[in-house]
Amino acid sequence: MSNIVDSLVEEYLRDMLPKNQGIIGEMEEYAEENHVPIIQPEVAKLLEVIIKIGNIKSVLEVGTAIGYSSLIFHKAMTGKGKVTTIELREDMYQKALENHNKAGINQTNIKILLGDGRDILPTIDDKFDMVFLDAAKGHYLKFFMPCLDKLNENGIIVSDNVLYKGMIASNKYVKRRKITIVKRMRKYLDYITNHPDLTTSIIPIGDGVAITHKTGRN
Amino acid sequence: MSNIVDSLVEEYLRDMLPKNQGIIGEMEEYAEENHVPIIQPEVAKLLEVIIKIGNIKSVLEVGTAIGYSSLIFHKAMTGKGKVTTIELREDMYQKALENHNKAGINQTNIKILLGDGRDILPTIDDKFDMVFLDAAKGHYLKFFMPCLDKLNENGIIVSDNVLYKGMIASNKYVKRRKITIVKRMRKYLDYITNHPDLTTSIIPIGDGVAITHKTGRN
Repeated sequence: MSNIVDSLVEEYLRDMLPKNQGIIGEMEEYAEENHVPIIQPEVAKLLEVIIKIGNIKSVLEVGTAIGYSSLIFHKAMTGKGKVTTIELREDMYQKALENHNKAGINQTNIKILLGDGRDILPTIDDKFDMVFLDAAKGHYLKFFMPCLDKLNENGIIVSDNVLYKGMIASNKYVKRRKITIVKRMRKYLDYITNHPDLTTSIIPIGDGVAITHKTGRN
Repeated sequence: MSNIVDSLVEEYLRDMLPKNQGIIGEMEEYAEENHVPIIQPEVAKLLEVIIKIGNIKSVLEVGTAIGYSSLIFHKAMTGKGKVTTIELREDMYQKALENHNKAGINQTNIKILLGDGRDILPTIDDKFDMVFLDAAKGHYLKFFMPCLDKLNENGIIVSDNVLYKGMIASNKYVKRRKITIVKRMRKYLDYITNHPDLTTSIIPIGDGVAITHKTGRN
């Protein structure tokens, strides 16, 4: 139970989606067996629709993990867009490279950078149509400003896990050792929903997804 | 309880949104007092973000009710877009006209048409960036094809109430007298999620919102 969406509803939505074949299907199995968190299938579908609606051609991701979401973005842009993705852990970085090789993707289409996002972000010269923030949940606010700098006008920042098993919404769900993360995430959501240049929708899907549009002052 | 989103999560998301003032706030009060269904505030915010991401400039709505959502769309397009909205009931039509007058909106910006969508849709010559389907829940499939005809390439159809109090997801939630509507809505969701030219995300927010992108064959 995620404490976010009713479990029967979640099951129904998941069952409606076609099962992924090939490397993407294999990665889903690997993630489940090895307890690597990847974006849920219904979140992947939402992001695919958002990418198409926004005619998004470039994505910057903080938190590659095994390279699953970056492949989803590449596919949603029908192979015509570019993804740059940052991963802190060496083992994950290697695994993602391996997966992208298997998928026949080269580093021109999806570029994986190894290191801490806070060091790497300032060294990136490009601007992007979309940023996907899927890093350590206690550090979203620190990542947000450098990510906003890399975002084109009218671009979007999508933040994953913003409701964190319901803990962000209610103290009833909070586990004691998670209190610091919870407090920081609430502060983050407060910031992105009240910033005068941004328009944010927090969506109760998966583990909670925030979509923030760089609107500017009207 | 909606049987869709955890009630503590729903409350948290709603509390984060700023209270609407002026005519929009008045309409929310009127809707609550008179049990007129209007889109929930968190759905309104999601649609605002979607309109901005898609740079949407024209909306066709089926189901005006008191004219609340059409005002939300007008505002989200920062007053620069056009809304055409269709309402079956004369009393609702009058109420919506009255509300739009109060809001200082004229029929150039939001045009309200009185009649049955199925009669009126074929008489509309314009094409739209977005269609919002918020009509009788048992008739979505009948409305869908004529609406798709009115949609620009890469446009979207947003359908509200597609999870209908959780009933669509599980028979456990179904009320006997709603069986026909439930069966029809399931058929509708099946159609829009499996159509080869469309990409659909079903989002467990409010009473369930489906966003369907007119993708075409890749």
